[in-house]
Amino acid sequence: MKSGDSTTIDVPEPSGVPKGKAHAVVTSTSQQRGGWKKGVAITDFVLRLGGIVAGLSAAATMGTSDQSLPFFTQFFQFEASYDDMPTFEFFLIAMSIVSGYLVLSLPFSIVAIVRPHAAGPRIFLLIMDIVALTLTTSAAAAAAAVVYLAHNGNSSSNWLAICNQFGDFCQKISGAVVAAFVTVVVFVFLILISALALRKH
Amino acid sequence: MKSGDSTTIDVPEPSGVPKGKAHAVVTSTSQQRGGWKKGVAITDFVLRLGGIVAGLSAAATMGTSDQSLPFFTQFFQFEASYDDMPTFEFFLIAMSIVSGYLVLSLPFSIVAIVRPHAAGPRIFLLIMDIVALTLTTSAAAAAAAVVYLAHNGNSSSNWLAICNQFGDFCQKISGAVVAAFVTVVVFVFLILISALALRKH
Repeated sequence: MKSGDSTTIDVPEPSGVPKGKAHAVVTSTSQQRGGWKKGVAITDFVLRLGGIVAGLSAAATMGTSDQSLPFFTQFFQFEASYDDMPTFEFFLIAMSIVSGYLVLSLPFSIVAIVRPHAAGPRIFLLIMDIVALTLTTSAAAAAAAVVYLAHNGNSSSNWLAICNQFGDFCQKISGAVVAAFVTVVVFVFLILISALALRKH
Repeated sequence: MKSGDSTTIDVPEPSGVPKGKAHAVVTSTSQQRGGWKKGVAITDFVLRLGGIVAGLSAAATMGTSDQSLPFFTQFFQFEASYDDMPTFEFFLIAMSIVSGYLVLSLPFSIVAIVRPHAAGPRIFLLIMDIVALTLTTSAAAAAAAVVYLAHNGNSSSNWLAICNQFGDFCQKISGAVVAAFVTVVVFVFLILISALALRKH
């Protein structure tokens, strides 16, 4: 009776311990996966902040690019500004829209931090990010093509380089294009992160 | 005892029927989801075929854009070609790379059709698609900016429109830009489909 009592005590113990262990393992793995998703959401938020800085500086640099030469004739003053070129106007508008979208997307990114497993805000952000990536890339590339022409000109179409006269203007628009390409890189990482966070876990 | 026996028979019956029903529902939903993923993979494949057509036609149109004017002087012949402009050379190279990538991505797309639940080829395609989208968009936008200048010129920088002289050349490069933007739209849908197919199911 003593040994029988000890066996009946022994039997539930080993079957109880693995159950407890298994439960603990499952819980910790689930928590790790939740933590991984939360880390991804925080990275998403930080990348968005960086994108806002890059996008706003691109828009501001382009918007303030304006140079007047110190000499002028009676009828004409030599001046270069972004609004002489439709491409640069498109650049300014596109970068303003993208920066505004990034600011408005911050609340959704915070929701993704608070609820790492909610798919709704993540899909919304992914779709909008793809649209914003396309807009930013097109603005940056179009401005880069015109900046290249401004620096080097083109002999076969008789387009002369204007950066000899407007050096400060050219430096500013070149800086704006670089900032826009930084924004493009930010969006590429944002889309990659969103897509991988949407994976089945 | 009679009523006790009937209750013990009644109890397992209602608990057994919902179990069988629940199992059948789970199986059919899982099959529906598998079929949904297969449909997405087939759409992916068809979109890639359309992207190849658009990308190759953009590259071919740009590569054959070449116009000589019917008059020439003793020292100079008036000719417009894509290789006068670095932007158009970049366009041709980028669209060739993108078309080649799309052809090489077809086997991975077929793997995704055969195995709709495999995440590996889908993640690979997603990453490469994002890179290809950025490349295509930048080529299309840069070429579009220069095509706009060729059509309209720019008065403040004294760049004259060249499309008055080279009408056929301008038509060809405009067509190439349109085809490139069609490729951009194809890539946007490809990325969206890949990301949604990666969702947890």
